[in-house]
Amino acid sequence: MSCAYNLTSRVTNPGRTVVECGGVRFGGRAIVLIAGPCAVESLEALRQSALAARAAGAAMLRGGAWKPRSSPYSFQGLGALALEHLAAARTQTGLPFVVEVMAPDQVELAAARADMLQIGTRNMSNFPLLQEAGRQPKPVLLKRGMMSTIEEWLLAAEYIMAHGNPNVVLCERGIRTFEPQTRFTLDVSAIPAVRELTHLPVIVDPSHAAGRRELVIPLAAAAIAAGADGLLVETHPTPATALCDGAQSLAPGQLAELAQRASAVAAAEGRTLHLPPGMEREAGLSDRAAGAPG
Amino acid sequence: MSCAYNLTSRVTNPGRTVVECGGVRFGGRAIVLIAGPCAVESLEALRQSALAARAAGAAMLRGGAWKPRSSPYSFQGLGALALEHLAAARTQTGLPFVVEVMAPDQVELAAARADMLQIGTRNMSNFPLLQEAGRQPKPVLLKRGMMSTIEEWLLAAEYIMAHGNPNVVLCERGIRTFEPQTRFTLDVSAIPAVRELTHLPVIVDPSHAAGRRELVIPLAAAAIAAGADGLLVETHPTPATALCDGAQSLAPGQLAELAQRASAVAAAEGRTLHLPPGMEREAGLSDRAAGAPG
Amino acid sequence: MSCAYNLTSRVTNPGRTVVECGGVRFGGRAIVLIAGPCAVESLEALRQSALAARAAGAAMLRGGAWKPRSSPYSFQGLGALALEHLAAARTQTGLPFVVEVMAPDQVELAAARADMLQIGTRNMSNFPLLQEAGRQPKPVLLKRGMMSTIEEWLLAAEYIMAHGNPNVVLCERGIRTFEPQTRFTLDVSAIPAVRELTHLPVIVDPSHAAGRRELVIPLAAAAIAAGADGLLVETHPTPATALCDGAQSLAPGQLAELAQRASAVAAAEGRTLHLPPGMEREAGLSDRAAGAPG
Amino acid sequence: MSCAYNLTSRVTNPGRTVVECGGVRFGGRAIVLIAGPCAVESLEALRQSALAARAAGAAMLRGGAWKPRSSPYSFQGLGALALEHLAAARTQTGLPFVVEVMAPDQVELAAARADMLQIGTRNMSNFPLLQEAGRQPKPVLLKRGMMSTIEEWLLAAEYIMAHGNPNVVLCERGIRTFEPQTRFTLDVSAIPAVRELTHLPVIVDPSHAAGRRELVIPLAAAAIAAGADGLLVETHPTPATALCDGAQSLAPGQLAELAQRASAVAAAEGRTLHLPPGMEREAGLSDRAAGAPG
Repeated sequence: MSCAYNLTSRVTNPGRTVVECGGVRFGGRAIVLIAGPCAVESLEALRQSALAARAAGAAMLRGGAWKPRSSPYSFQGLGALALEHLAAARTQTGLPFVVEVMAPDQVELAAARADMLQIGTRNMSNFPLLQEAGRQPKPVLLKRGMMSTIEEWLLAAEYIMAHGNPNVVLCERGIRTFEPQTRFTLDVSAIPAVRELTHLPVIVDPSHAAGRRELVIPLAAAAIAAGADGLLVETHPTPATALCDGAQSLAPGQLAELAQRASAVAAAEGRTLHLPPGMEREAGLSDRAAGAPG
Repeated sequence: MSCAYNLTSRVTNPGRTVVECGGVRFGGRAIVLIAGPCAVESLEALRQSALAARAAGAAMLRGGAWKPRSSPYSFQGLGALALEHLAAARTQTGLPFVVEVMAPDQVELAAARADMLQIGTRNMSNFPLLQEAGRQPKPVLLKRGMMSTIEEWLLAAEYIMAHGNPNVVLCERGIRTFEPQTRFTLDVSAIPAVRELTHLPVIVDPSHAAGRRELVIPLAAAAIAAGADGLLVETHPTPATALCDGAQSLAPGQLAELAQRASAVAAAEGRTLHLPPGMEREAGLSDRAAGAPG
Repeated sequence: MSCAYNLTSRVTNPGRTVVECGGVRFGGRAIVLIAGPCAVESLEALRQSALAARAAGAAMLRGGAWKPRSSPYSFQGLGALALEHLAAARTQTGLPFVVEVMAPDQVELAAARADMLQIGTRNMSNFPLLQEAGRQPKPVLLKRGMMSTIEEWLLAAEYIMAHGNPNVVLCERGIRTFEPQTRFTLDVSAIPAVRELTHLPVIVDPSHAAGRRELVIPLAAAAIAAGADGLLVETHPTPATALCDGAQSLAPGQLAELAQRASAVAAAEGRTLHLPPGMEREAGLSDRAAGAPG
Repeated sequence: MSCAYNLTSRVTNPGRTVVECGGVRFGGRAIVLIAGPCAVESLEALRQSALAARAAGAAMLRGGAWKPRSSPYSFQGLGALALEHLAAARTQTGLPFVVEVMAPDQVELAAARADMLQIGTRNMSNFPLLQEAGRQPKPVLLKRGMMSTIEEWLLAAEYIMAHGNPNVVLCERGIRTFEPQTRFTLDVSAIPAVRELTHLPVIVDPSHAAGRRELVIPLAAAAIAAGADGLLVETHPTPATALCDGAQSLAPGQLAELAQRASAVAAAEGRTLHLPPGMEREAGLSDRAAGAPG
């Protein structure tokens, strides 16, 4: 790794960065579970998703406002209205939320409402978007490009950091290979490989990697065993009626099962599942003081 | 192929589309050679590139204004100034030019000056950019994502067309594989496969596929033999001093050799090399009336 | 899946197969750790490897007799002499051993001495070898081809079974992708995907996938979390002096650490680590009666 | 490239090797067209294929005796009987033939009857088979593994040469990628890349790469334009009834069209199509004296 990585590299920045986001901490001892629908469809459906997510143990909510759809004729998302719904769900549940931005001109609005901005796999090398994400104050969840090397991924993080924002969380979500049994191939090796190279937290999205819900729980467990700092999971109150990605969305009961499995594996690794914000104080627990794992 | 392809599909749109661009026609009997530097570096260097391109037989000029660079610390392009230099080179040589846009807010300026807008491989699934390119009048050169299937590539073209712009030229530029001898693997099969599925013209960029100049000429010849409607080639007056992609840039003499080889293969396929605009009338030649090949 | 899979398919063969091999059972509740050197180099080095493997908790020994080396000038293995050394190590430690066969004419000799035959990644589609492995009585460890789909892998198992041998254990060992940080990309999704399709046990080789020892332990933990029935790990008394694959071999202390991590994750999944044969009776433990996990 | 390539490398062996095989020369100015069925099905069908191949301009016959089939329940080939049929077809047409060997114990028989032995893509790293092919006198057609790097391919050639056989012809046949429109992705860049590294001839199999006949002719033309020394094409008198690979087999009229296109592109590259043995003398032509292209 050359000097091109001077902000992301562990060599020049020893230790581990903890990224704080609406009361949730990525990169500490606690593993963060983010759950929610592919796309925000209605206030009521989102409210149900958020309550189910919190009940299952998720510390954060996800939900798409602007959707990157391969076909121009697919549902493109509710846009600004989705942000209002997400904010309402946050008020009701206390869960902070992350939302994906697809263009530089969406960044300001999203940063004003959301707790975290997501750069999706198709935009990992959208450099004007990375720069804009670097110029605003909210933490950024940077997904790996489905055909990007780990080096290119870290350089994308470097773009954000070089423009002023040190709070980047990486997210492995599967790469493209010849194998058709899964939508993408989850590169679980990327987790320890990235932890070796950078001080930034890294989480995993097993839903998009698998492309079908039967595989999501084993992949989530594998990700935590490999050292991931969190999980990003698609859920839906009734997956069969979802406007996008229904096949890979978990129903509420399945999310609870995932959280249980994730907790057990986390414990085997000497870690815990991050409680929803607010519940920590109630539970008298905190890992603020705990050292991040090496 | 489903109804998602109703504008790009050959089934619903029999025949072949010819895209006209500053006096140059893509998709006719004549094969279009586009040449020029990776990035516009100075007016003088660009002038030399343009004159050499025209002398070698190129019908169109390329040159980067905003550069998508993997590292934030690499040369990022001259921006608007590059457009001025390209326009000046066009005045001097008569060659229309294509320029890459990376963000929606660059489209208006680029469309006002350039003859054709390029969407690069990293932005093939940048849907807000595709939409913006669909709402302006200049033809669009749409590169295939290095990780995109042919179906996704055609859907990206569908985005542009669905927003009002029917003038799309596709460009195969290599996909990512496990083979390290080349920067990317040129998917030459994509040329006949795409011509089977769509009525749009398709050209090839052998420079980015190869990543080193030794392979550019054989790949250019292969592309034409496989049915490509044009070539996009990186050139530089002195490749060793280029600010980007020097290893894959052809020197002027090598471009002339490429044009000669391309001409010979084109003739074997019953086609010709498109003359630079203006020279056609001088030469008394025109393929306007000629039927496009099936 | 068509009728081509009538022996491997779970549809036609519900339940889970347990493959017994020298007192070790693959596919039960207990996870089998196989350890040993890439190649058998000498009786003394092998003896040390075997003792260290047993001490760390391995239930089975591996060691190469005939080595598939990319270059004809690399060390090609000790051949029949290696089998003698492996048998001697078995006598001393009680550990059964698996050995890779590369050609049909090696099968008879290997089957006479070894407890299990391995078909390597480069021979997964060596059909005469698969047939020969099907005609002898010892269980077969069938590695996935580095370029093979899961369907092709199961068809290779079908070859062995169709020629008379029902005792096949599958082994995922990484597939080839564009990512250069690891030697191969471990396809952890293949574990649950295969368990869905077939009743055969599936284990994982994290050493060849990773290509460097830093990543072996996290990948081993991930494999177990995803549902693997065992691990195949390269070890060496002094990796720096190994005649092959030294960079990915674990030293004895690292193997003990791997076994500990694997045990903890197995417990989180309601499983245990298989004890070395003989030690089970001493420990008064047995999972013979235990139902295999679904 | 290290000293591991001392027999295959152009550095240590300047010039170009011409491999002679039953009166046919690979690597000279003339491009060799090999045609014939996937599998030999009957004497009569083979006779028709051979006559059609010769009439179209093929200089050599191919036909499978032992077939590497993914499923154990697919047609496995006629074995030794197929060799008799191929020899009979040679007598009738004068065309030498190549046959694929899958196991070391097939080599002696095949070498006694055939003019050239083929090592298929699934056996490129079958080292015992490579060694056996190196110990017999007939030229070897070595296909690239569908997931093998160019370096590994040259090392496989080195195996054959290191065991005594200098007559190796390489054959690119497509590599595995994420693109589903073609069975494999023909790596046309491999042709000039290999010609840079080695003095051995290289031919291309467009049939297996494409997987469907519509793409075979454009890929064949592309291969020749990129510098290939020959083509290996699957043909069948009535493709719809073929016992294997019917979808990619050309009917006799299509083979004639391919030969015509190949001839035209070859001429553009300053080359010709190799005449069937015997016809050269009749035609008063020979390229024996002609220097091989650089």
